[in-house]
Amino acid sequence: MRILLVNVNTTVAATDAMVVAAQAVVDKGTQMEGLTPTRGSAGVDSNVQSLLAAVGVMDAVVRYREPFDAVVLGGFGEHGREGLQELLDVPVVDIAEAAVHTAMLLGRTFSVVTTLPRSVAQVQDRLLLAGLHLRCASVRAVGRTTRELDEHGSTAAVVDAARAAVEQDGAEVVVLGCGGLAGLDGLVSRTVGVPVVDPIAAGAVLAESLVRLGLRTSNVGSCAPPDLSQTLPWPPG
Amino acid sequence: MRILLVNVNTTVAATDAMVVAAQAVVDKGTQMEGLTPTRGSAGVDSNVQSLLAAVGVMDAVVRYREPFDAVVLGGFGEHGREGLQELLDVPVVDIAEAAVHTAMLLGRTFSVVTTLPRSVAQVQDRLLLAGLHLRCASVRAVGRTTRELDEHGSTAAVVDAARAAVEQDGAEVVVLGCGGLAGLDGLVSRTVGVPVVDPIAAGAVLAESLVRLGLRTSNVGSCAPPDLSQTLPWPPG
Amino acid sequence: MRILLVNVNTTVAATDAMVVAAQAVVDKGTQMEGLTPTRGSAGVDSNVQSLLAAVGVMDAVVRYREPFDAVVLGGFGEHGREGLQELLDVPVVDIAEAAVHTAMLLGRTFSVVTTLPRSVAQVQDRLLLAGLHLRCASVRAVGRTTRELDEHGSTAAVVDAARAAVEQDGAEVVVLGCGGLAGLDGLVSRTVGVPVVDPIAAGAVLAESLVRLGLRTSNVGSCAPPDLSQTLPWPPG
Amino acid sequence: MRILLVNVNTTVAATDAMVVAAQAVVDKGTQMEGLTPTRGSAGVDSNVQSLLAAVGVMDAVVRYREPFDAVVLGGFGEHGREGLQELLDVPVVDIAEAAVHTAMLLGRTFSVVTTLPRSVAQVQDRLLLAGLHLRCASVRAVGRTTRELDEHGSTAAVVDAARAAVEQDGAEVVVLGCGGLAGLDGLVSRTVGVPVVDPIAAGAVLAESLVRLGLRTSNVGSCAPPDLSQTLPWPPG
Amino acid sequence: MRILLVNVNTTVAATDAMVVAAQAVVDKGTQMEGLTPTRGSAGVDSNVQSLLAAVGVMDAVVRYREPFDAVVLGGFGEHGREGLQELLDVPVVDIAEAAVHTAMLLGRTFSVVTTLPRSVAQVQDRLLLAGLHLRCASVRAVGRTTRELDEHGSTAAVVDAARAAVEQDGAEVVVLGCGGLAGLDGLVSRTVGVPVVDPIAAGAVLAESLVRLGLRTSNVGSCAPPDLSQTLPWPPG
Amino acid sequence: MRILLVNVNTTVAATDAMVVAAQAVVDKGTQMEGLTPTRGSAGVDSNVQSLLAAVGVMDAVVRYREPFDAVVLGGFGEHGREGLQELLDVPVVDIAEAAVHTAMLLGRTFSVVTTLPRSVAQVQDRLLLAGLHLRCASVRAVGRTTRELDEHGSTAAVVDAARAAVEQDGAEVVVLGCGGLAGLDGLVSRTVGVPVVDPIAAGAVLAESLVRLGLRTSNVGSCAPPDLSQTLPWPPG
Repeated sequence: MRILLVNVNTTVAATDAMVVAAQAVVDKGTQMEGLTPTRGSAGVDSNVQSLLAAVGVMDAVVRYREPFDAVVLGGFGEHGREGLQELLDVPVVDIAEAAVHTAMLLGRTFSVVTTLPRSVAQVQDRLLLAGLHLRCASVRAVGRTTRELDEHGSTAAVVDAARAAVEQDGAEVVVLGCGGLAGLDGLVSRTVGVPVVDPIAAGAVLAESLVRLGLRTSNVGSCAPPDLSQTLPWPPG
Repeated sequence: MRILLVNVNTTVAATDAMVVAAQAVVDKGTQMEGLTPTRGSAGVDSNVQSLLAAVGVMDAVVRYREPFDAVVLGGFGEHGREGLQELLDVPVVDIAEAAVHTAMLLGRTFSVVTTLPRSVAQVQDRLLLAGLHLRCASVRAVGRTTRELDEHGSTAAVVDAARAAVEQDGAEVVVLGCGGLAGLDGLVSRTVGVPVVDPIAAGAVLAESLVRLGLRTSNVGSCAPPDLSQTLPWPPG
Repeated sequence: MRILLVNVNTTVAATDAMVVAAQAVVDKGTQMEGLTPTRGSAGVDSNVQSLLAAVGVMDAVVRYREPFDAVVLGGFGEHGREGLQELLDVPVVDIAEAAVHTAMLLGRTFSVVTTLPRSVAQVQDRLLLAGLHLRCASVRAVGRTTRELDEHGSTAAVVDAARAAVEQDGAEVVVLGCGGLAGLDGLVSRTVGVPVVDPIAAGAVLAESLVRLGLRTSNVGSCAPPDLSQTLPWPPG
Repeated sequence: MRILLVNVNTTVAATDAMVVAAQAVVDKGTQMEGLTPTRGSAGVDSNVQSLLAAVGVMDAVVRYREPFDAVVLGGFGEHGREGLQELLDVPVVDIAEAAVHTAMLLGRTFSVVTTLPRSVAQVQDRLLLAGLHLRCASVRAVGRTTRELDEHGSTAAVVDAARAAVEQDGAEVVVLGCGGLAGLDGLVSRTVGVPVVDPIAAGAVLAESLVRLGLRTSNVGSCAPPDLSQTLPWPPG
Repeated sequence: MRILLVNVNTTVAATDAMVVAAQAVVDKGTQMEGLTPTRGSAGVDSNVQSLLAAVGVMDAVVRYREPFDAVVLGGFGEHGREGLQELLDVPVVDIAEAAVHTAMLLGRTFSVVTTLPRSVAQVQDRLLLAGLHLRCASVRAVGRTTRELDEHGSTAAVVDAARAAVEQDGAEVVVLGCGGLAGLDGLVSRTVGVPVVDPIAAGAVLAESLVRLGLRTSNVGSCAPPDLSQTLPWPPG
Repeated sequence: MRILLVNVNTTVAATDAMVVAAQAVVDKGTQMEGLTPTRGSAGVDSNVQSLLAAVGVMDAVVRYREPFDAVVLGGFGEHGREGLQELLDVPVVDIAEAAVHTAMLLGRTFSVVTTLPRSVAQVQDRLLLAGLHLRCASVRAVGRTTRELDEHGSTAAVVDAARAAVEQDGAEVVVLGCGGLAGLDGLVSRTVGVPVVDPIAAGAVLAESLVRLGLRTSNVGSCAPPDLSQTLPWPPG
């Protein structure tokens, strides 16, 4: 099985890191294929960048010529999953949703540890739209951008936020709320004492599960293929 | 006062019609300025097109060189308002939200009459995200695309949907859920017997009101200006 | 256009101040007409007083003999708007609802700064009934009655509460939750750094907008005219 | 124990009928004392009348000179309970709330059968304010005013509405949503096959229970006694 | 009238104490009959024990041979009420629900003071399932097991938790969230200054009220008698 | 990896069928191990049976001596998952929750097709408790017991209910709401035209996914191990 792991930012190194993290948890027979948009932002930390990313992602996926069995959308709190579901028949798994689905299977409440304070609202909006916010104890920010996390790491800040989520907010499970936090799950879990969900790993494994179950995205209602005949030649070029 | 009325589709005639409708209700001293994106779709009836439209709208607004006091975003159920609020200090009024705010001042419940069945979910999502869905009695579709409404009109279908909203769903007010329905409000209201809100008119007047009140979009939290230094040269060209 | 601005308390000086504040923001051609109930309380800070006020307001409006195009109900968290909507065809705008509608157009979350701790519940109830509570980050009290605010001012206490709303509760916009706070919006906004909505101004401008849009209160369902034939001669005398 | 049963309308015969119904279910040692407001409406079927009734009820209760241990407020969906709770220390039981509390102890879902279609919204608002709407399957109207029910009865219409609530809406319990329906509970229950709650009986017995438990209305927060020193001499005369 | 008061744990002394507390508040003509399961736990402080208790309670009630008019289920936050409602026609009153219904009649918000932190979620789940959580200001734990409370008392800890609920969480009424706290209501109420509801007393009086009203548990829908023909001989032995 | 698939009823043939269905979708290296309670009901269609089943399941799992990596709880809408999570460190996956998590990844709304009308409430309660009800378009019953479905099949009734869910309720995905419907997913999906989720398959694959991700049930808060020292020797014998 081939699963397309689409980054939401234009940083190839970040895509590569996500592919490594995903490949480590999926079945040997499953091939994770990284895809990096060529348009958008090096890091996505706002609604402006998130909307640009959504289009960059759609551009990249529509132009992609190899076959694939599912898509993992590697942005936490970003726009775009609904668009891909209209365009594709294969499963489309948003890593924020996948991580929360996973967390809800492990405890009664979860908290998300994300990047900047401004991202808190975006994560809340994404969970609200997905109908997944009811068991969310809190969304906490570590106060660094996606890029800063990618470049410098921030284990201590993440551990602090996760501990506060557990001790003050009543979280029974912690979700790492940024693809750039991949790989910190084990350390944070051992330190804080609750299960910690890595969104890239959760997204990859859930996408694989849907393929194994023979399930595809619905194509009725809000997921029906759009009539793009009136859309300007797209993707451009 | 100059208010930018930004269409979400690329159809200049539709923009022109919206400007006429808006100009008719605002103060003589208020100038409505139409703006049509050059990229996107001739009509927006899906999430794919809505996301493309959001970027097309941001492109157009960022490149626009004249001064303006507020923006009216002329799409009903489309993405993009959050992005514009980050980019601009002036008020940004989404016509779907404006119409619902207006309707809620006129009665206890409202229904939206929109275009295609698939748009129902998009309208519901927009109201959910805005925290404005609690008094929504129903969202009904007339079964035609935005373009078909623009081109052929569909008074009878709109009246039927509005009547069903009032008689079966308990709506005390009806909201026309598409910019392309502008101008039908008087006729539908007289026929069905409840107030009918035209979203373009409501958006224009509410934008004007915010300017008159001296209010601007918040620039803290989710509305704070984004750091776009890592974003690919944008808008392109 | 003539808009009736009805105070909920019996203090004529408070009505006069509200009229001045409202007249300052509406169009030159719009005349704000103050109306003070002759029965009720000098200040309204409880449910008992709020219910008395609702009847005092209905008495005053029903006896009023001049024509008017809309009513602004100048109480924040008071009963009565539903009753006026049944009695009148013109728009009836409650200032609490108007202020919240306005705030929701300017940011993702808002807080209300009101008078006494006991008023917090009344404000919450009003927003709950109007379906407008979902984006309310908090309702904070400054610990003074409506009359104390009218007489002594309380800029510092209001600024403190507004700052706490922004910094601790995550409010992106602040609503002044009492007609007696009119005029503090500019100062609080400059000090705290977020948009601040004056409810009297918001109410006046939204009422004006509804008239300009040619919209009237629904008269079906919960807004239908009541059969008052069995009601004791009312208003009395 | 003496319990004051306050009618919300000015029809003494209706009060008398309620007292009979209540006296039939309370303990022999409990005396139900009827109280009829002298101001308000012969029947209460709108928000205007409901607000007038709230003041009429407060007038009557405050002037009442005999001792009492609890108050039952005999209006279904009317305003006023919050005001009485501020004025009194003894328990104040609204019959709509009492009936719903009772119904929730007997099954998972309940429906209310009320008078006019316009009262449906008032009942829903009352349950919403009390936090009691979550298990409400429906509120159905029989299409007659309170007075018409008082005068002509309407057993068949009530049975039809109750049956529809059970068969179509999934109600496991039915609540008679008007004091004027008192006494129909047995017949409707036998005919439709589910428990049927009479609101007057439920209100009287719950008030008696609170007294027996030695409990009084809270007098902190929203229930604290109001400062009425600034209120016009009240009640008048 | 005979009311069966069923303990959820196997501690006979606890049952006896509950019977004394209940008998003190019901009518002279009402006989409270204690019933202690022979299988289950000496104290119930987890979901495992709660599920065992539910079956232990059903066993005990089904084997009970004397007539009774209602059942009071003496566990706060335990499973089992739904099962008993299927098995019996008489009213089945869960003390947690009874206490909350009672509290909601006395003020706008309530808090529950319970035993262990882990019980907080169980109490919240029970209120959620009953549709009674909307006016819950908080559930606070005193940090002792049911048995420790039974054996050593914990007045000071309960007072501290109740005071925090009132002062920090805005509770207008406090509910004692454990049968083992019976008898502390008067002291806590005098100390903290708000009404305090004893769940055993509330359960007994509400059960008595339902019998007096001639009401029985619904036997349609989720309350219909189950077909137990395929169930292993039960109760065993 | 060994996954324990625990039936909630005592019918060994049903367990065997579930194991076959589960084994067909998991990895070759994953061994599904069936476990049938020896106490409880041949079929579980009520709360009484569900509570008995919860204890029967805990008995069986606690006595089970072989190692296992996860548990799948094979009842749709049954009690017991919370208890197992307290007792075990390995993941515990309820098939109703697993199926709904899966459905939410495939479309915006889902409906559940279950057995008897009385089970509708049980399914709704389970989703409510899990915080998974917001995207549920409907729960429809086919009107047959679990055993009848096991024995006679009911393809036509299931197809009819699924079609009604899609066409009338707006479901974009259908969930088969009973272990006894296993194997019908392909046929129903082809007939009705939307993805159909088999709960046994979904449960097995999600359990496998959690193990692959190295995640275990939280053991803090509501999932912490209970102190069973005061519990009667359990499981008995």
